[in-house]
Formats: sequence, C-alpha cells, structure tokens
Amino acid sequence: MFSATRQRFHLPDGVIYLDGNSLGPLPVAAREKVASLLDGQWGEYLIRGWNQCGWMDAPTRIGDRVGKLIGAPVGSVVMGDTLSIKVYQAVSSALELNPGRRIILSDTGNFPTDLYMVQGLLRSLDRGYTLKLVEPEEVAGALDDSVAALLLTQVDYRTGRLHDMPSLTQKAHAAGIVTVWDLAHSAGAMAVDVASCDVDFAVGCTYKYLNGGPGAPAFIYVAPRLVDRVRPALSGWLGHAEPFAFELSYASGAGIDRMRVGTPPVIALAALDAALDAWDGVDMADVRRMSVELSEQFIAGVESQCPELVLASPRNSEDRGSQVSFSFAEGFALMQALIADGVIGDFRAPDIVRFAFTPLYIDRHDVTRAIGILADIMRDRRWESTQFQTRTGVT
Amino acid sequence: MFSATRQRFHLPDGVIYLDGNSLGPLPVAAREKVASLLDGQWGEYLIRGWNQCGWMDAPTRIGDRVGKLIGAPVGSVVMGDTLSIKVYQAVSSALELNPGRRIILSDTGNFPTDLYMVQGLLRSLDRGYTLKLVEPEEVAGALDDSVAALLLTQVDYRTGRLHDMPSLTQKAHAAGIVTVWDLAHSAGAMAVDVASCDVDFAVGCTYKYLNGGPGAPAFIYVAPRLVDRVRPALSGWLGHAEPFAFELSYASGAGIDRMRVGTPPVIALAALDAALDAWDGVDMADVRRMSVELSEQFIAGVESQCPELVLASPRNSEDRGSQVSFSFAEGFALMQALIADGVIGDFRAPDIVRFAFTPLYIDRHDVTRAIGILADIMRDRRWESTQFQTRTGVT
Repeated sequence: MFSATRQRFHLPDGVIYLDGNSLGPLPVAAREKVASLLDGQWGEYLIRGWNQCGWMDAPTRIGDRVGKLIGAPVGSVVMGDTLSIKVYQAVSSALELNPGRRIILSDTGNFPTDLYMVQGLLRSLDRGYTLKLVEPEEVAGALDDSVAALLLTQVDYRTGRLHDMPSLTQKAHAAGIVTVWDLAHSAGAMAVDVASCDVDFAVGCTYKYLNGGPGAPAFIYVAPRLVDRVRPALSGWLGHAEPFAFELSYASGAGIDRMRVGTPPVIALAALDAALDAWDGVDMADVRRMSVELSEQFIAGVESQCPELVLASPRNSEDRGSQVSFSFAEGFALMQALIADGVIGDFRAPDIVRFAFTPLYIDRHDVTRAIGILADIMRDRRWESTQFQTRTGVT
Repeated sequence: MFSATRQRFHLPDGVIYLDGNSLGPLPVAAREKVASLLDGQWGEYLIRGWNQCGWMDAPTRIGDRVGKLIGAPVGSVVMGDTLSIKVYQAVSSALELNPGRRIILSDTGNFPTDLYMVQGLLRSLDRGYTLKLVEPEEVAGALDDSVAALLLTQVDYRTGRLHDMPSLTQKAHAAGIVTVWDLAHSAGAMAVDVASCDVDFAVGCTYKYLNGGPGAPAFIYVAPRLVDRVRPALSGWLGHAEPFAFELSYASGAGIDRMRVGTPPVIALAALDAALDAWDGVDMADVRRMSVELSEQFIAGVESQCPELVLASPRNSEDRGSQVSFSFAEGFALMQALIADGVIGDFRAPDIVRFAFTPLYIDRHDVTRAIGILADIMRDRRWESTQFQTRTGVT
C-alpha cells in the first residue's frame, strides 16, 4: 500500500530508520523545491518574491495543508516559529479566555519544553498562577472548575501512551476549562480531528512525522469559534491587521493570521511544503492501521527474542501512538549498538529505547530485520562494549 | 575593492538591486551549502546530524560569526527565532533587571514590530508599565531615572536616520536605564561595536544586510556582564541547563545559551552560514566608506536631475545608515515604475522611496545607471501610468 510513498524518501543504504518521531527522513522532493526556492525565487525575484512567489501567504497556505492532516478547517492553522513559541501563544491566550481561574493543569508525561514555556509565562505574569502536574492517568480526575487551561501532549514522547483527546476535551469543557493539545507526536502519525473533538488550541512541530526537516516551523490551530477573541501576547507585525501600514500601535489581524509573529521562514517552509506532498492521496486511517500492525509485529518479535527488554508502552494498541518503547537499564548503550548496526531508534533518559513505526517509509521487512539485529545484539551482550557509552541525544 | 565580493552574489541580468535593506540577494555559496545540508547531512545522517553535523551548536557557532560584525565577544550572541521574538526576550529581560521602574522609552522612528511586541508584553504583564514614544530627536532629553529600558532601532527603516548609539547608551546608563538596540538596519551596513558602546542587549535580523535569505533567523546579544542575571521569559528547552535530562522544571543554561528557545532552524542557518562567508576578509570600515560614497553620489545625482524628489534622509552622512530616502507624493507608483525598469528599491508609506547602498554587490556604475533611469522616469512622468498603482509591499 505504501510502496509509492516509500519512493518519496531518501533513506541511506543499510539503515532501518525507526526514528521518524525525532526527525523524519529527507523527502526527495525537498531538494528540488528548496533549490528552486533559492535559484528560481530568491535569486531572481529578490524582494518581489514576498508577493509574486507567494512567500507572504505561505504560513497560512501550508497551514491549510497541515490542517487537513489534523482535521482542521481551512483558515484555522498557521505555520511559524517553534513549537515552544506556539505553546506560549496558546497557553497565554487560553489563560486570557478564562480570567477567573489560576491553575494550568498538565501531566508529568508532557514534553519538558511545554512545561518550561508555561513556567516562564507564569513567572512573567506573576499573578498567582500555578502549573499543576499530575500523573497521566490522573488527568481526568483533576479536571475541575479551578482549572483555567489543560495543556497535554496527546502522545507521550517516552512511552507512546496516547491520551483520549475526545473524552478529555469533552470533560474539560464540561468544567469550563480551555484546552491546549500538543500534537507533536500525533500529527502525521494517526488520525487526529481537532474539529470534531472541539479542541480549543492545538500546536505541533513538523520535523517528526511530517518530515519537514531539522528545525522545521511549528503550527498552531485555534478553534474558529474562539480565534476572534484571542489577544496575542506575542503581538508581532505579521499578526497585525495591516502589517504594511506601519502603524505605531498593534491591532490584531483577522482570524488565525493574528497568531503570526515575525517574518516567515521561507526556505524552511519550502522544504516542509515538499514534504507534505507525501500525504497526497494517503488516508490517515491506512497509516494508522499499518503503523499498529508494524508496532504489534515489533512487540511480538522483541518480547519473544529479547526477554530482558520490558515493554514501556501501553500493550493495547488503542492506547499507543506510533512508537513503541522498551525499558532496559543499559538502554543508552543498547541504542548506540543498534545504530552502529544500522537500526536507528532513540534513547530517552533514564532507560527508554524507543522506535517509531512510520508506514510512509517503513514496512514489515524492515521490522523483521530490525528485530533480528536487536536480538543478535542482546544475545551477544554487545551493549557492554565501551565504544557505546558516550552520552548525547536529541528528541 | 569589492569586485571579489560582488562575485559571491547572484543578481539577475538587468537588475540594479538597491533593496538589500529589505532582503539581501542570494549568495552563490548558499545553493551548495543548503544542498549539502539536505543531501549530505539530513539525508545521510538523519537524527545523528544534531550531534555529528554540528546542528545543535549552529546557533552559537553562527552567532559568533555575526558577533564579529557587531563587535560582540565570542559567546555573547546566539541565533534563532525572529527579530520580533528576540525583541520580546530582550525587553522582558531588561524590565526584570530594572524592577523599580515602569517606563519603556522608544521613538516614533522605531520599526513597528518592536513597538507591537512591547505592547503585547506590557499588556500581559499588566503591572502599570508604559511604553513612552518620543520623536527621535527627543530621545536624549527623555532619558531620566523614571525609565526602565530604552528600546531603539539604530537606523530608521524609513529615513535612514542614524541614532548615536555610543552617546545615547552612555547617557542611558548614567540614568540607570537598561538599553536594547535593534541593529536590523545597521548590522552588516556599518561598523557597530556593541562591546565598546557597552550596550546591554542588541537584536537584529539577518535577511537584510547579512543576506541570510527570506525569513532568516534573528540574533540576540547580551552583555556578558549581565547574561547570568537574565531570567528568560521564553524559557524553552534548548535554553535549559540540561536539555537532554528532560527534567520537569526549567533551569536556565549558562551564558547566552539561555536565550535559545526551541529547536534551531537548521536549513535556514545553513543558508545564513554561507552568506556570512562574503564577509571573510572584508573590513567594515571599507564597507561604510564605500556606502557613504555611493549614497553621496546618488543624492547629488537625484537632487540635480530630479528636483521633485525631496531628500528625506539626513543630509550629513554621519547621521545616516546605508540607505537614502526621498519623499514624493506618488512614491508608491514611482517605485513600481523604477522596478519595471530594473531598479529595485522600496516604498514605505505614506510617501517614502528608499534605496540601500551595499558595496558588497553595488558599485558606482550601478548608481550612475540608477540615477539615469530614475531621471528618465521623472522626466516622462511615467509613474502616472495606471499599471503602477496596485498596492502591496514588504519591508
């Protein structure tokens, strides 16, 4: 089913890439698209590219392409900045929409930068706000009318545990809570439908399952029913109603445009635009089905051949995103040994090895080979080699 | 003197590009550098590129290259985000360093996004802060001990008027004011020395005189004497002391690293890195001298041949940056007519046409030709043609 999409990506010889939840591989079309942006557009149009090559509209045009993959209506998603900045925008806006409450609820499974950005925001605001962190399974029980905003990452970056976004959003709304969902580990990995879930804000990065390249721009979704009430804290000129009137006072633009801040990253957007072509004609339900199949194959193979590895992901595929994690005390060294043998996954402190199953470019044969290589390493205790001990790593 | 640097840029046939203060032209080396980033690095190293290709350190490594051009010591500049975000970081930090005061002083010549970002910040803080705007020439007289922070753009984006950064900084410091300088229109245009001026914070973009490409990342400088006291409001994971420990609480990193926020824009940084090669072996004093010479040539030519155009820039070259502006009621249409004839400058509402003189790729012959084309258009009143009336534009 995915043999055509596999051709869209460059994968180095001998590599089985199970780390698309950190950084998706190079889409072949990105080379040409970026070269054409440089030579054909920047080189020839120069400043005129902003209007004549559509650079100025790229954040919303590409936002609509991402929006399709997360169930967002046209005109409700815009690209720009980094996920950290988009979290800041979403949470600061959410708090303003719920002025009488002082608690932001999140969980200990959230990606740290989401929590850090909120901590910085709350310190700035200095108005008695509290970031309340509970265990992931305690979130539902903590949704009461003291909570202003709920900030959750749908899929846990370490374990792949999947939050029930529809039910938690509904429960949050019943308690008058504004919701902010981080889709970093779910957009492009599974069917997400922000509109039918009625989420308020959603944010995400595009360098993981969306294959936009290292440091690719982030996205933000704001529910159309809310966007005109949002007052941006990061009120940059491209979120202004009339950026080119050069007025001295800020007045927010219409709709999702107000979530724009500074000048858009045109080169990076071109790479992302090319990467999104891989989704043309792809049904996210098929992606999810195949991802689950590959994940189940991997879990079964590892559990039967590598009993030292303990499944750290939920066993039930309905409770997981597109990654599978195992815990192993020597996880760091194990991952180094795997990478040396061409199986690229990821390590997350203190003891998690994680593997993403991305059907656009990974198939059953890859998974079979990966299990075999992992089993060989475990059998030979190859992680014990000193060459695999130096610590570095990136999400 | 600059014939070698001129070869480093691609300029379309028949174009005289006097808009390097909006978007610098394509450096030829950027093609190869970006292609190699995509194919040789992202494509082959995948996630390993973060460490093995130096992506993670690129913001400080390239920051040091920019730092050289603005007189900043090694380790005091970092790249990332957009200028708008960097303004927010600098001003929010400045206010925290001066907790007893409630006025931010700026001028009506500042670029709007700087003012907008401060307006958003102050609205969020909601603690009685005021953004006080005075005319540019009134800044010096308004520096008193009620002012917490001074936020100025060194060179006015419309008129090219140059603030006296050394003297204003000194005067501000004498009144206990923390200074934030926006170098968007001076970095790469003239000798800037943030260290000898003893400025506290400096920010800027890199897509103008530094030729980094559309939407290239911004920079921020923090004086080394201050940086360890700065508490980032935008506290992202890459500003954390140990980003890969994935702790739940933010703790700021050492030195300038704390001004990092999210994942760095690696592709855009590669283009910028290539663009900065053009400065190797170039003395900024020579750039400034030649820019003044070209500017004087242009003013003299225009004033003698086009008396309808009124100089809007300071007449004294010591009071100007590297751009020359004229006011003309039909400025928008005039600029359209100029562009149609291959002379690319810029229009700024309500009536300013502006031209940048960038010796890296513009010489006396270009200026002579530009004057001739402008004089022809004025003589024939060609701006009156209806084809030149549709309004769009980008800084």
